[in-house]
Amino acid sequence: MPADLRTATGAEVRAACRRGDHRGPTPGLALGFVQANLVVLPRDWAFDFLLFCQRNPKPCPLLDVTEPGDPEPKAVAPGGDLRTDLPAYRVWRDGELADEPTDVTKHWRDDLVSFVVGCSFTFEAALLAAGVPVRHIEQDVNVPMYRTNVACRPAGRFAGPLVVSMRPLSADQAIRAARICARFPRAHGEPVHFGDPAGIGIRDLDKPDFGDAVEVRPGEVPVFWACGVTPQAAVMHARPPFAITHKPGHMLLTDLRDTDLEG
Amino acid sequence: MPADLRTATGAEVRAACRRGDHRGPTPGLALGFVQANLVVLPRDWAFDFLLFCQRNPKPCPLLDVTEPGDPEPKAVAPGGDLRTDLPAYRVWRDGELADEPTDVTKHWRDDLVSFVVGCSFTFEAALLAAGVPVRHIEQDVNVPMYRTNVACRPAGRFAGPLVVSMRPLSADQAIRAARICARFPRAHGEPVHFGDPAGIGIRDLDKPDFGDAVEVRPGEVPVFWACGVTPQAAVMHARPPFAITHKPGHMLLTDLRDTDLEG
Repeated sequence: MPADLRTATGAEVRAACRRGDHRGPTPGLALGFVQANLVVLPRDWAFDFLLFCQRNPKPCPLLDVTEPGDPEPKAVAPGGDLRTDLPAYRVWRDGELADEPTDVTKHWRDDLVSFVVGCSFTFEAALLAAGVPVRHIEQDVNVPMYRTNVACRPAGRFAGPLVVSMRPLSADQAIRAARICARFPRAHGEPVHFGDPAGIGIRDLDKPDFGDAVEVRPGEVPVFWACGVTPQAAVMHARPPFAITHKPGHMLLTDLRDTDLEG
Repeated sequence: MPADLRTATGAEVRAACRRGDHRGPTPGLALGFVQANLVVLPRDWAFDFLLFCQRNPKPCPLLDVTEPGDPEPKAVAPGGDLRTDLPAYRVWRDGELADEPTDVTKHWRDDLVSFVVGCSFTFEAALLAAGVPVRHIEQDVNVPMYRTNVACRPAGRFAGPLVVSMRPLSADQAIRAARICARFPRAHGEPVHFGDPAGIGIRDLDKPDFGDAVEVRPGEVPVFWACGVTPQAAVMHARPPFAITHKPGHMLLTDLRDTDLEG
């Protein structure tokens, strides 16, 4: 295994997590490999959630869904084990945070279905490669995220607002960003809004609902993307009796390359 | 309502079906509006089938999935009624054809989930508009379709081979067709194969498994696309106790425009 997980493969980062050698956040690790959100639900909640993702593909781009009880995400990380291969998890009971372990083997059940959902790290790498700045990376904070007044299409017991992430850009950067991100429909795709935050029900850019505020400089407009917190917020709102998610920032490393998510 | 259903809207064709005024095939009707395959399954089979579609998006591009019992495809045909708005249906019991009615109201149940799946008519219209010929339309027969030796990714009780449709094209037409069809990922997208039929396990082009054989002229190669018969074949193979599908060629007309399926 490489000493530096930044140049490791996705499989090497998963192995490090499995051994307990890595328990921290994943941004910047295994560069070029797709990182993903994780949502795990009991079988009798899985149809509604799968339908929620199908109806809301921009915030919920599904990369893999497992058979009930199977911890191996065969499509994106064959040989992997979703119970051990993430650095940290959150365990939820009735919508309340119950545990924050680094291994969920003892919580595992035969009826659990795992959903692997694309994440914005993929298009951020493409933006940086194209010379488009990403402010929260520059400022070394978490991306600012906001609840909007745009409703997701509900599905069974799941409903809720679209949650967006925001990156400030100049007009020409925003236009380039739209073109670049449109290449990645399975990583939230092109922006959903830019300019006036009130247009999608955001009152104060300085007070994000999740993550950290970032500086918007003169000549820049806020640009908003559908965000992977949307499905997690829908799950927490629905209060299923049991759920597991990744700990924010502590993602699943897959075997997919960022370029695999194009088109 | 226009006297000629070719220039009608999708909603007008649905209304004509609902009144019993149209019971025939739909190719060529409501030009410019998206036509779609229909698969209806009981709730306890719906998760596996939704997962099958998620895992096999090229043959099974989902346009809409209803809540259990709800006959209205809200995303693609708001106000529509899937029990009455197609010209003809097939009703299946334990995988065997049980009825071929023009209305399934008497067969409807509170636990039925409907899947609306994109179809090749969308990209065929784009091919014709670009001057790329479509042989089975020229010859006024059904498109030839073949079972391949390419396995779909299974999901629960659903499994089976990829079924493909075939259109003969010259090399330059095939290249243009690939570019044009890539614009329509929700209508089977770009071809999956061209050239040697044996490369995907097809023995005899003159003996399609479904539809009719068409002429392949000197200088042409067979070009193969993922086909919407794939999910129907998987359903028939799984033999669920109850299912409804459209009668082949008798599709659901939606309110979507062909251009809505781009990108």
